[in-house]
Amino acid sequence: MVGTSTANYQKFWNTRNSMKRILIINPNSSEEITRDIQNFARLYVGNEAEVVTVKIEDAPEFIETYQDEAQVGPGMTRSIQKNQEHYDGFLVACHSDPNLDLMKEVSHKPVVGIGESSMHSACLLGDRFTVISATSGSIPNKEALVRRYNLGNQLASVRPLDSVAGTVDKLDLCERVSRDAVDEDGAEVIVLGCADLVGMSFELQERLGLPVVDGIASGLSTLLGFIDQALFISKVKRYGGHV
Amino acid sequence: MVGTSTANYQKFWNTRNSMKRILIINPNSSEEITRDIQNFARLYVGNEAEVVTVKIEDAPEFIETYQDEAQVGPGMTRSIQKNQEHYDGFLVACHSDPNLDLMKEVSHKPVVGIGESSMHSACLLGDRFTVISATSGSIPNKEALVRRYNLGNQLASVRPLDSVAGTVDKLDLCERVSRDAVDEDGAEVIVLGCADLVGMSFELQERLGLPVVDGIASGLSTLLGFIDQALFISKVKRYGGHV
Amino acid sequence: MVGTSTANYQKFWNTRNSMKRILIINPNSSEEITRDIQNFARLYVGNEAEVVTVKIEDAPEFIETYQDEAQVGPGMTRSIQKNQEHYDGFLVACHSDPNLDLMKEVSHKPVVGIGESSMHSACLLGDRFTVISATSGSIPNKEALVRRYNLGNQLASVRPLDSVAGTVDKLDLCERVSRDAVDEDGAEVIVLGCADLVGMSFELQERLGLPVVDGIASGLSTLLGFIDQALFISKVKRYGGHV
Amino acid sequence: MVGTSTANYQKFWNTRNSMKRILIINPNSSEEITRDIQNFARLYVGNEAEVVTVKIEDAPEFIETYQDEAQVGPGMTRSIQKNQEHYDGFLVACHSDPNLDLMKEVSHKPVVGIGESSMHSACLLGDRFTVISATSGSIPNKEALVRRYNLGNQLASVRPLDSVAGTVDKLDLCERVSRDAVDEDGAEVIVLGCADLVGMSFELQERLGLPVVDGIASGLSTLLGFIDQALFISKVKRYGGHV
Amino acid sequence: MVGTSTANYQKFWNTRNSMKRILIINPNSSEEITRDIQNFARLYVGNEAEVVTVKIEDAPEFIETYQDEAQVGPGMTRSIQKNQEHYDGFLVACHSDPNLDLMKEVSHKPVVGIGESSMHSACLLGDRFTVISATSGSIPNKEALVRRYNLGNQLASVRPLDSVAGTVDKLDLCERVSRDAVDEDGAEVIVLGCADLVGMSFELQERLGLPVVDGIASGLSTLLGFIDQALFISKVKRYGGHV
Amino acid sequence: MVGTSTANYQKFWNTRNSMKRILIINPNSSEEITRDIQNFARLYVGNEAEVVTVKIEDAPEFIETYQDEAQVGPGMTRSIQKNQEHYDGFLVACHSDPNLDLMKEVSHKPVVGIGESSMHSACLLGDRFTVISATSGSIPNKEALVRRYNLGNQLASVRPLDSVAGTVDKLDLCERVSRDAVDEDGAEVIVLGCADLVGMSFELQERLGLPVVDGIASGLSTLLGFIDQALFISKVKRYGGHV
Repeated sequence: MVGTSTANYQKFWNTRNSMKRILIINPNSSEEITRDIQNFARLYVGNEAEVVTVKIEDAPEFIETYQDEAQVGPGMTRSIQKNQEHYDGFLVACHSDPNLDLMKEVSHKPVVGIGESSMHSACLLGDRFTVISATSGSIPNKEALVRRYNLGNQLASVRPLDSVAGTVDKLDLCERVSRDAVDEDGAEVIVLGCADLVGMSFELQERLGLPVVDGIASGLSTLLGFIDQALFISKVKRYGGHV
Repeated sequence: MVGTSTANYQKFWNTRNSMKRILIINPNSSEEITRDIQNFARLYVGNEAEVVTVKIEDAPEFIETYQDEAQVGPGMTRSIQKNQEHYDGFLVACHSDPNLDLMKEVSHKPVVGIGESSMHSACLLGDRFTVISATSGSIPNKEALVRRYNLGNQLASVRPLDSVAGTVDKLDLCERVSRDAVDEDGAEVIVLGCADLVGMSFELQERLGLPVVDGIASGLSTLLGFIDQALFISKVKRYGGHV
Repeated sequence: MVGTSTANYQKFWNTRNSMKRILIINPNSSEEITRDIQNFARLYVGNEAEVVTVKIEDAPEFIETYQDEAQVGPGMTRSIQKNQEHYDGFLVACHSDPNLDLMKEVSHKPVVGIGESSMHSACLLGDRFTVISATSGSIPNKEALVRRYNLGNQLASVRPLDSVAGTVDKLDLCERVSRDAVDEDGAEVIVLGCADLVGMSFELQERLGLPVVDGIASGLSTLLGFIDQALFISKVKRYGGHV
Repeated sequence: MVGTSTANYQKFWNTRNSMKRILIINPNSSEEITRDIQNFARLYVGNEAEVVTVKIEDAPEFIETYQDEAQVGPGMTRSIQKNQEHYDGFLVACHSDPNLDLMKEVSHKPVVGIGESSMHSACLLGDRFTVISATSGSIPNKEALVRRYNLGNQLASVRPLDSVAGTVDKLDLCERVSRDAVDEDGAEVIVLGCADLVGMSFELQERLGLPVVDGIASGLSTLLGFIDQALFISKVKRYGGHV
Repeated sequence: MVGTSTANYQKFWNTRNSMKRILIINPNSSEEITRDIQNFARLYVGNEAEVVTVKIEDAPEFIETYQDEAQVGPGMTRSIQKNQEHYDGFLVACHSDPNLDLMKEVSHKPVVGIGESSMHSACLLGDRFTVISATSGSIPNKEALVRRYNLGNQLASVRPLDSVAGTVDKLDLCERVSRDAVDEDGAEVIVLGCADLVGMSFELQERLGLPVVDGIASGLSTLLGFIDQALFISKVKRYGGHV
Repeated sequence: MVGTSTANYQKFWNTRNSMKRILIINPNSSEEITRDIQNFARLYVGNEAEVVTVKIEDAPEFIETYQDEAQVGPGMTRSIQKNQEHYDGFLVACHSDPNLDLMKEVSHKPVVGIGESSMHSACLLGDRFTVISATSGSIPNKEALVRRYNLGNQLASVRPLDSVAGTVDKLDLCERVSRDAVDEDGAEVIVLGCADLVGMSFELQERLGLPVVDGIASGLSTLLGFIDQALFISKVKRYGGHV
C-alpha cells in the first residue's frame, strides 16, 4: 500500500512544472531593496525556479507602522490576484509579515512570510533566538508578532541596530548586536529581522560561529518546499474567505 | 553593501557541492519501512540530492517507548559520527523525533527531525493542525512533544488510527480520522504523524481538500533548505556538547 | 500632596467639554445595523454625550474575512483623521475589532474596539466567558483574537448561532446557544460577539440569570470612562506611527 | 427585532435610578486616605452618582500582608451585606484587590476592584504596562495578582517607589520611576498601583506624555458602566456561594 | 568539603526532635471528618510523629465558598499562632487550600496544603491527572487553583462526584468517575480532591491499577519531609508579612 | 465508610516492609560523589530505610551533555531492571534528571528524579526559586527542563557557579550566587542544582535565612513518601511501555 502511495506521488511529480515560478512581493517601494532581493533570490534559487520580485506602487519607502501596512494591502492583494495563475507561490519579503493573513486568504497557491519562516526555522537550530530589527521603535510590534506565532518561549530578545552608536558598517553593526545577544540574552541563533539585511547571513555566520537566518533565503526554501509537497493554505476556516 | 553581501553568498554558492548528500536515519529496523522511505525520498529529491536511508541494526521494529528510544541511541549516534564527513545533512525519520537533541549535539552538519519539521510547517498553513498517530498509546508522548516545541496553541488534536474500528485500508482510515478532526476538533491542517504513512499526503490532500503534511517530504525540504543556507545546529549552549 | 493632585484633576475637569462627543465607526455598509447601533447608542449615553454612528462607504455588508477588513481600512482611517478634532473618542463597532491597531495608531484621541472591551469586561464578571458569534466560520479568527488579547484562560468557548438549526427568533437562538455554553463549556458570562445583536443583552440577561455583555454598551462605557480620565492611546512604541 | 431589543433596553433604562449610588470600600483604616479618595471620587463622578467612601474599623493603616487582608475580610463583608439594598455597586479601593473574590460572592450588585480595573484598562491603551507599587516588598504579590488575571504577557514590570532613594516629592518620585520603566522595561502605559496615589495621574500624564491609569478613576468608570449595562457578578459557578 | 557538609547536616540531625510533632488543621467544623483524618493520620505517620487534628470552632460544616474561607481565617490563624512553639509543622487539611497563603505568612514552621501537595505529587507520577471533587459547583475554583499553581498543562480534568447519578457507595462512585477520566480525558493519575475521601486511595488504586493520590497522606509526607530537611517558608518577599 | 477506608489502608500498612529499601542511581562514574551521596543519604534516612548508592560503570565523570545522558541510559536501565524485586523505589541522583522518562517506564516501583522533586518542592516554599547550576553551559538545558515541568512561572533564574570569579570555597560561592539571585532576580528559595552540592543546604540556609533545597534530601523524602503511600508510576499511557 505504501507502494501505492509513492505511485500517487509519482503522478503528482510527473505533472508538476519542472521549473517553479515564484513571485516575491516587496511591500515597500524601494527600488534598491527590490533589486537587492531580486539579485540575491535569483542567485539563491539557481535553476530550480524562476523568480520575480515586485515592489508595491505608491508604497512607503519602509514598512514600519500599521498605517504603512494598511496602505500597501490593496497593492499586495492585486499582486497576488492578478498573478495567481502564473505563479506557483508567493513570498512576502518584509520581516514584520505585513498583511500576511490577508495574503493567505486571497491566494490559492502557497504564501510564506519571511518573518514566520525565519523564526520557525530558528527554533530548529537552537534553543533561543534573537531577532535583529532595524529600529528600537519596532521592538513591541516584533514581540507581538512572536507571541502571535507562539514562539515566545524560544525568543531570547529583539535587538535593534540603532542600539549601538557610532558604527557605520552594517555588517559590523550586526556582528556587535549579535555578540551582545549571545552574551547578555542567551541567544544561540540570530535572525536577520529586516529584508534589507538580505545576503549578510553568510558572512556573519563565519564571523560569529553561530547560525544566522536570512529571511529571504529561509522564506524561499520554505516556499519551494511547499510547492514540491503540493501544499497550499488551508481554506477550511481561518483563511477560507467568502465561500 | 548589500552588493557585497550577495557577493559573499556568491562565494559560498560557488564552492558548495552541486549535488547535496543526505543521510536518512530510520531509527527502527524495519526493512519495509526503510525501503518505502528510500523510494519516496529518492523520487522526492529528484536530482537535487543523493539520498541514502539506513536503518539501525538491533533496533526494534517500531519506536514507541522510551526504552525503544534509548535502545537506538548508540546506533543513531554512530550513524552520524561515522558519516559526518560524507553527508551534508541528516534526517531523523521517525515522527516522535527520538534522540533528536542528541543527534543535534553530535553532528556538525544540520539535523532535522520529521516531527519538528512537519509540525512547524503545519503552523504556516492554517490555524490548527491535527496529528494522526499510529496508536492511542502514543497520544501523551506526542502531546508532550508538541508542548516541548511550544506549539500547543495551534494543536487541534492528536488522533490515533486505532480509534476507528473495522476499516482495513490505511488511506481510508486516514481519511476518516482526518474528517473527524476537522468536524470535531477544528483542524485545518493534517500532519501524518508516523513515518510509515510516507507518500500518502498527496492522495489524502485531494480527497480532503486540505493541506496534509508528510513528515519525510517536509523534513527533506527543511533539510535541503538548511544546506542551501549553509545553516547548522548552534553549538553555543544547548547543543554544545563537551567543548 | 494628594490635595494638590485632586486640585490638578479639578483643573482638567473644569476645562473639559461638558458634553462628550463620540464617533461610532461601523466598519460595514449596512444601513440597518448602522441605524440600530445609533438608536441604541443614543439611548444608552443619554445626555452624557453626543453620539454619531457612521458606516464606511463601499464597505461590504458584513465584515468577516481578512479581505473585508483590508477593504475598509482606508475608509476607517479617513473617518478618524478627518474627525480627530471634532470628537473626543472613537468606537469601532464590529466585534472582530477590524483594523483596531491601525485606528489606535492613527488617532490622538482614545479608540476602543467592542471586541476588546466586552471580553476584558467579561473577565471581571465571572471566571469563564463564551462568545456568541454569527457563524461557525468565524470561530478560528475569534479564537485567534482572544489569544492575541491573552484572555484564553478565561475563554469557555466560541459558539456560533448557526450551530442551532431550525429556530427563527434571534433572541431564542441566543438563549439556546447560551444555555449550551453554560451546561457544556462551563460559561459563567455571555459575550454578544456580533454588533447586530446590539441591545439584546438586557432581555437575555433576564431569561438566563447570567451577565450578558453587549459590545456596543460595553465599548461606549469604556470609551466614556477613558475620556473622563483624560486617557489616550500610548504613542511611545507600538502605536507611535511615524514620529 | 433589533427594534424590540432597543425597546427592551428602553424599559430598563426608564426604570433605573436616575442617580446611581456607589459605595467605595477603603479596606484600611486611614482617615486621610479615605478622605482623599472621597474628595477625588465626588469630583470625578460629578452629578452622575452619589458616592460614599467608608473605611473598615479596626483595619490596619495599610493593607500589605495576607494577615492584613484576612483581618479586614469580615468588615468588608459587612459593608456590602448591610448596604446591599441601598447601593447600586461597590468599589474595592485598594490596588491589591484584597478579598475581591469574597466581595464578588457576597454581593448581588456589581463589585469592581481598582487593581483589576486599572490593569485590564491599561491593556487597551498600549502593549505593555508598568505598575508603580508602594514598596519593593509588594512586588511578588503584585506579580502573582497579574498572573492570576492572566495579564502577564502585557506586564512590563512592577516598580516600587522605594527603589528611588533621596527624593521627597511623591509626584517627582512617580515621574522618575515611570521614566525608568519606559527606558528599561519597555513600558507604554503606567498604572498607579496604590490607592494613595489617587488623583496624580493627570499631572503625571502631562509630564510624561504617556497614559497613566488611576485606580480610583478607572474603577469608578468601570463600575458606573456596569451599572448602566445592568451587569452583575455571575452567580453560576465561581461566585455562586451557598445556593 | 562535602564531608564538611555532611558534618553540618549531622549537627542538625543530632539536635532535632526525635519525634516530630504535626498539627493538622481541618478548616471545617465536622466532628466526623476531623476524627477520620486523625485516625488515618495517626496510622499513616506511625511512630515517626505525634499528630493532632483540630477543627476550627464556629466553622461551617464544609468549606466551599469564599465566605466559608474568610470565616475560618481567624480561627486558622490562631491555631498556628498559639501552637507555633509546640509543633514542627502544620498541615491544612482541605483540598481547596483555604487561606494557605495566609498560613504560610503567619507561620515560622513549614506549612503544607493538601491541595498543592497532592497535585504537585501527581505531576511526578504521570503525564496528566484528574482531580475528583465533591460537587460540580467547585470546578471553577479548583481549576483556578490549578492555574494559580501553574499546573494547568498536566491537568486532564476536574470531575465532580455528583456527575454520576444513582450510585450510593462513595468508593464505587470514585471508581466510576475515575474510569471516565481515564477513558474520556486521558487521565493517568487520580487525585482525591476532598478531605473526606481520606483513606480511599489504597482500595481505589487496586481497583483501577492507577496511582491515586490521597491529599492527607501526600500532605503528611511532604510536611514530614520538609521537617527532616529543616525547610521553612521563605520570608524574603511573598510571605514576609510585616517585618 | 471512611472507617472502611482506613481499614483498607491498615491492611496495606501491616503488610508493607517495616524497613524500606532504596536504590540511589548516580548516573556518573565518580567514586567520590557516589560516596558523598551514600554518606549523606544514610544519615538522612536514619533507620527508616536501607539505602544503597550505585554509580554507572563506564559512565562519564560528570553528566552534562546529551551524549553523556545517552551513554548512561543502558546502565541505568539495567540498574533498575535487575534490582526491581529487591528495592521499593529508585532515586535518580543527577539534577538534570537524565533518562528519567525512561526510568519511569522501565520500573514497576516508584522512581523520582532529584531535579523534579527539588523544583516542585521549591514551589511550595516561596513564590520564585533560583537553581544554582555547576556551569553556565548548563543553563539552556536546565531552563528547558523547567519548561518541560511547566514551572517556568516560578523560576527566578538559573545561576551558574562559574559566574563568580576568584572564589575558592564552594560554600562561599553558593552563598554569593544565592545573594545575587535574591537581590537581582527576586529569588525566595534556592535549589541546589547539582548532586555534588549534597549536604550543603543546611549550612547555606543558616547563612542566608532562606530555604535551600538539597536535591538528594528532597528526592529521598519524596520517594519515601511515595512508598508509604503505595504510589507507583502510572502505566496507563505515557510510561506504559510495551504492553
